[in-house]
Amino acid sequence: MEFLSGLTAKETLELGELLEPERIGTEVRVNGFVHTVRDMGDVSFVVLRKRGGLLQCVFEEGASSLSAKKLRESQTVELTGTLCSDERAPHGVELRVTGGEILTVPYDTLPLPIGKWKLNTSLEAKLNNRSIALRNVRERAKFRLQEGIVRGFRDFLYSQQFTEIHTPKIGARGAEGGANIFRLDYFHRPAVLAQSPQFYKQMMVGVFDRVFETGPVFRAEKHNTKRHLNEYTSLDFEMGYIDSFTDLMEMETGFLQYTMKLLEREYAAELQILNVTLPDVEKIPVVRFSRAKELVAEKYNRKIRNPYDLEPEEETLIGTYFKEEYGADFVFVTHYPSKKRPFYAMDDPEDPRFTLSFDLLFHGLEITTGGQRIHDYQALREKIAARGMTEEGMDQYLNTFKCGMPRHGGLGIGLERLTMKLVGEDNVRETTLFPRDLSRLEP
Amino acid sequence: MEFLSGLTAKETLELGELLEPERIGTEVRVNGFVHTVRDMGDVSFVVLRKRGGLLQCVFEEGASSLSAKKLRESQTVELTGTLCSDERAPHGVELRVTGGEILTVPYDTLPLPIGKWKLNTSLEAKLNNRSIALRNVRERAKFRLQEGIVRGFRDFLYSQQFTEIHTPKIGARGAEGGANIFRLDYFHRPAVLAQSPQFYKQMMVGVFDRVFETGPVFRAEKHNTKRHLNEYTSLDFEMGYIDSFTDLMEMETGFLQYTMKLLEREYAAELQILNVTLPDVEKIPVVRFSRAKELVAEKYNRKIRNPYDLEPEEETLIGTYFKEEYGADFVFVTHYPSKKRPFYAMDDPEDPRFTLSFDLLFHGLEITTGGQRIHDYQALREKIAARGMTEEGMDQYLNTFKCGMPRHGGLGIGLERLTMKLVGEDNVRETTLFPRDLSRLEP
Repeated sequence: MEFLSGLTAKETLELGELLEPERIGTEVRVNGFVHTVRDMGDVSFVVLRKRGGLLQCVFEEGASSLSAKKLRESQTVELTGTLCSDERAPHGVELRVTGGEILTVPYDTLPLPIGKWKLNTSLEAKLNNRSIALRNVRERAKFRLQEGIVRGFRDFLYSQQFTEIHTPKIGARGAEGGANIFRLDYFHRPAVLAQSPQFYKQMMVGVFDRVFETGPVFRAEKHNTKRHLNEYTSLDFEMGYIDSFTDLMEMETGFLQYTMKLLEREYAAELQILNVTLPDVEKIPVVRFSRAKELVAEKYNRKIRNPYDLEPEEETLIGTYFKEEYGADFVFVTHYPSKKRPFYAMDDPEDPRFTLSFDLLFHGLEITTGGQRIHDYQALREKIAARGMTEEGMDQYLNTFKCGMPRHGGLGIGLERLTMKLVGEDNVRETTLFPRDLSRLEP
Repeated sequence: MEFLSGLTAKETLELGELLEPERIGTEVRVNGFVHTVRDMGDVSFVVLRKRGGLLQCVFEEGASSLSAKKLRESQTVELTGTLCSDERAPHGVELRVTGGEILTVPYDTLPLPIGKWKLNTSLEAKLNNRSIALRNVRERAKFRLQEGIVRGFRDFLYSQQFTEIHTPKIGARGAEGGANIFRLDYFHRPAVLAQSPQFYKQMMVGVFDRVFETGPVFRAEKHNTKRHLNEYTSLDFEMGYIDSFTDLMEMETGFLQYTMKLLEREYAAELQILNVTLPDVEKIPVVRFSRAKELVAEKYNRKIRNPYDLEPEEETLIGTYFKEEYGADFVFVTHYPSKKRPFYAMDDPEDPRFTLSFDLLFHGLEITTGGQRIHDYQALREKIAARGMTEEGMDQYLNTFKCGMPRHGGLGIGLERLTMKLVGEDNVRETTLFPRDLSRLEP
């Protein structure tokens, strides 16, 4: 009987291994995509694209049993040769090739010049050739940073004794209300796609105290803007035994601090590729919603049209104001009007027109909505009634409160928006692997 | 202007802190749910449920400014007192209470006796009161272990240079074929929910070499069994530059080894609560599909009815066989018949009736399906044509292969099934927070 006992070492080396100083001068074996081929006559420079980065491979006339003339962009190959240091090459090393083989071949030339440093093509063209466009080194780097953000979120919350949960995306009713809900047939019963894990994460506060989820949410919004997606990845947490909603903002600040350090440490190559300067998260200003409106109105000479609403331009200007006045990349805006928040938001006992809630703006864009929730069963039912809503489909949610719940609150972060602002893009589709919008259901 | 600069220390202590030896004899402050109240007259024992476990709190007549008579199950409270060691108490410590306050109150008695060690109630009753049933210490421990599995999967794959991806769950067509697909209306266009991230993770192999995703998948199966869910969490990976599909099985073995160590180290309390003995993952037997059928037929005196299919009882018996003969908890069954695998599976060049694929069985239950994929554009189109399938909706998938792809393969693991077998449950709903099946769409 054959048995497997785990990983076995591969003969081919990855970029991290190739950069170990003791490898210089040794024979090595590598594989990868042919990224670019530059034929200079007697010598050819073939750049391999590996998951860790680019590797320059030099073919000298007669030195290699595999001829560089046979190599084409987008083949995958395995090459052997001597590793040499060369300051002009990416990462300071190059492979002087002695042999190798072609592993797989493409059937067509690529629709986009992915070998270029910057893929100067329209967003539309990139999305129409998504799996090819992302082979560009700068394009893929954005999603490596996105990984770092999610990883930072989870690792920080594990360290704070949160439990990760997986809640259903098909359900009987939505948590957030409104019309932006996708409907489907579930074995001849009407069902919806989750707008958020809100009800579930609250219910789980009674079980684990602190929970988080990183998963897809679905919003059937008919907005076609640079900020909206119809499906996005939401980083959600919910925590019990809070003293006030400041606890939530502190937890989010802690997450951002942890994550920026993680990116600096583990994703330095990608930060460099994209020329990203990490934002300041040492201290984040906190301002009340109504005060933020005033500050912006005063400084930028605007009229406050509606004291209970924030226009997109006002949001942008709040970002500008805090950057100019305090050098701040982020700002917490607190005490949003009750009318603008869902029924489960806790109203401010000192002024119930406002809530114990907040948004976090990153360079003037809302990337988080959070706040304290109503934990008292009767108060929750009264709020539902006051809004003229039905309790239908909320039985287990409401029963959870009837059976006792701690004071709690939480937040949701839009992963693609946070990534977009971090890397300095201005369209959220740039930092979404496969965006879903009004017109885009494929690939 | 107010600023936040991260986490601030809380006065209340968590269980890990309470168990530090130097805390004994000191004044401490704790919060939590009232789990049980036992009134013995002059003295009352109140057990608090905290996220880390249970804490016994002793109220002696006249010693506390808060009377134990006021305490009821499922209130949340904050208590102060002296921490003492007592071998009879959970974790060997108890709080001698001097005061405190009631934070929140329930409006009803609980529908289930969650304070009991074992919640001896039907699965149906537990699911009908899901958020309450999970407050039982043993019930919630299952989902802590589930967290450990997902965490092990991700952390191991990060260490192996995989990139985490987030792919859309709404799409134009399914990847796995068949009728088990949920359909919805996407802004007046027909759309489906993802049966798997298969197409996307393959497309991303050309970008990142190695990718993984942990997310929901949707199967509109009309099976009402103990093993099937209509929505589950799939742990998926896909990797390029494989030498053969053995690379995939080795990677999965590595994940299991890493994860069992993680559970042992970080989830010891939960393993003890559930009395779980971790399975043996040091070496995992590998057997061909047809050989496995023969072995089981010989030993258990069964007739092979169909050489190209595996009946559920055969699967179970393969598990029994390898446990009995080799003491194995897991077994890789390889070379599944081509007819039973999707079009993208790579046929075995030595016998195209079978594929370069595998399932992993855990105590006789399939928890993983994986294998090498077709990477050649023409071969892929020929297979699609041979199956009488349409290429409609696969443009970008197919273009990815036209533009060149490395040899690759991957797998998908059913998280709830793996958890179920690990903790020794026999119904997958026991290890699903909020199961979705033919009859259950709520909560």
